[in-house]
Amino acid sequence: MSNVAPIGPIRTYLLDLQERLCRAFADEDGVATFEGGDHTGPHGSLSRPRVLEGGAVFERAAAQFSHTVRRQLPAAATDRRPYLAGHAYEAVSVSVIAHPRNPYVPTVHCNLRFFRADAQGAQLEGAGSGEVGSGTAGPGGGGTWWFGGGFDLTPYYGFEDDAIGWHRAAHAACSALDDGDADAVYARMKADCDAYFFLPHRQEPRGIGGIFFDDLDQPDYARCAAFVRQVGDHFLDAYLAIVRRRRDHAYGERERTFQLLRRGRYVEFNLLHDRGTRFGLQSGGAVESILASLPPDVRWQHGFVPEPGSAEERLFRDFLPPRDWLALAR
Amino acid sequence: MSNVAPIGPIRTYLLDLQERLCRAFADEDGVATFEGGDHTGPHGSLSRPRVLEGGAVFERAAAQFSHTVRRQLPAAATDRRPYLAGHAYEAVSVSVIAHPRNPYVPTVHCNLRFFRADAQGAQLEGAGSGEVGSGTAGPGGGGTWWFGGGFDLTPYYGFEDDAIGWHRAAHAACSALDDGDADAVYARMKADCDAYFFLPHRQEPRGIGGIFFDDLDQPDYARCAAFVRQVGDHFLDAYLAIVRRRRDHAYGERERTFQLLRRGRYVEFNLLHDRGTRFGLQSGGAVESILASLPPDVRWQHGFVPEPGSAEERLFRDFLPPRDWLALAR
Repeated sequence: MSNVAPIGPIRTYLLDLQERLCRAFADEDGVATFEGGDHTGPHGSLSRPRVLEGGAVFERAAAQFSHTVRRQLPAAATDRRPYLAGHAYEAVSVSVIAHPRNPYVPTVHCNLRFFRADAQGAQLEGAGSGEVGSGTAGPGGGGTWWFGGGFDLTPYYGFEDDAIGWHRAAHAACSALDDGDADAVYARMKADCDAYFFLPHRQEPRGIGGIFFDDLDQPDYARCAAFVRQVGDHFLDAYLAIVRRRRDHAYGERERTFQLLRRGRYVEFNLLHDRGTRFGLQSGGAVESILASLPPDVRWQHGFVPEPGSAEERLFRDFLPPRDWLALAR
Repeated sequence: MSNVAPIGPIRTYLLDLQERLCRAFADEDGVATFEGGDHTGPHGSLSRPRVLEGGAVFERAAAQFSHTVRRQLPAAATDRRPYLAGHAYEAVSVSVIAHPRNPYVPTVHCNLRFFRADAQGAQLEGAGSGEVGSGTAGPGGGGTWWFGGGFDLTPYYGFEDDAIGWHRAAHAACSALDDGDADAVYARMKADCDAYFFLPHRQEPRGIGGIFFDDLDQPDYARCAAFVRQVGDHFLDAYLAIVRRRRDHAYGERERTFQLLRRGRYVEFNLLHDRGTRFGLQSGGAVESILASLPPDVRWQHGFVPEPGSAEERLFRDFLPPRDWLALAR
């Protein structure tokens, strides 16, 4: 498998992305910095949580890197791929979330992950070596691998410019996967994002989406890896552009209250629906790292309904329902 | 079934309890009152949500009454009793939660419910008639019924007096079920309460417990119904006594912050673990009524650890781990 789907390059990229992101967010913030140590585990596993709290621009931001190496994949992790249970696997991921202070700056989320399992039980060499395991790709061969992830934006107040810029970045990243048909790739991944970041109990989208992908192993490893790098780079640039555009927008108690109430929806989604959060907590993951995705201050108000014609109502009416933002830009 | 397990008396009691409670809480508050309408449904179903918000003593309190009558029990509701699927049923319940403003006043929760299903598909007569359905009790007969519920307390700051008074009330209610062996009833229901109100992902109890029971149909209907009435009455008296004792306790930013952080645990429990909340949301219940159980203002802080020797640490050390409060009182 090492020749077909090496973990080294993607691991290096994700560690570098985490570092660039922490630097860029801290620079943007100007007050607070990211903190956190390194936790090493068996076979070269590494967990590197980084959390910034109480900043001027960001009330909280978390960027977690993790590289998990296990000799045996637990059955709970392989519902969709029962043939992998008991086999050696490793996974590398970065998960980013930022909860800005200013209600005009959207909350953002990005996750990038790579998973590979060796169906022949070959010895894993550990994290340091860059390329580990052996076998061929795909369920029919000696092992399997895939990429997953995406990014999505949760504004409190809607701006068409922001939405268009965000989805342009998503589209641009898709060119790396299929430059002949980026439109189709983007359309599929945008629809998957809208479907995933949805609160069924409220019949309400979480935000304005972006792209979401899982089980990605086509057309080949090199293209997938290049695509994931593009997703990471575009995410960082597109979000920073929005932060810079909105961070000094004046706001008052009304906007702050709406932000706190909308954050409540974020908590509901993460605790009730998000697969990563629920799986992490159920499998005994580090609680504080997993729940660093939650907003710092949150409010629930019984029966809140935005005023007709208000900016708050426009969010629900014009921004949350899935839209073709790129068509709007043309 | 009507002769064996009538729904009328328990329905009347729960409606009266809700009214007494709303009056007592509003009187205690002095500023805010409970609001909400009546929603009627098929076959005499009634939902009566009552929510108080922004009071002087209570930031939020909710007391929901509901009487559900259905011709066919959904399969999802009968995991443990598959033989009831498709049969007529009705359920009556009151659910109470209060989130006080002063951090020295504990958050409280009480739920009382009665369920009966007619395994012979007899016609239900609707809610107004007091006694409906027909058949005999128990799975071997024409129908089945049971009571469930309990009450539990979630203090932010621990006081032995409050804990002892609370558990004495729980013990006193248990006498109504078995006056010869109230100790054993209380011990079992206290242990069930400690087991249920527990956050497995944090390995942390939610509060100092109380009593919890489900599937209660022994020794007979009359005893069970009398017990449930005692639970409701003792709950109201015991909680009001604590509110009155603590409501004017001076507090500052430190206590408020700790209260907000602890409320985060309450949200985690309700959204991640509470069966009633999860089942209600999954089955398309009224979101705003179900989530009226959440605290109004909440905070998450990454890696919070209370100061050694502080009152906050004492909560974790001396109050949250299950204790025999009645032994302490002797």
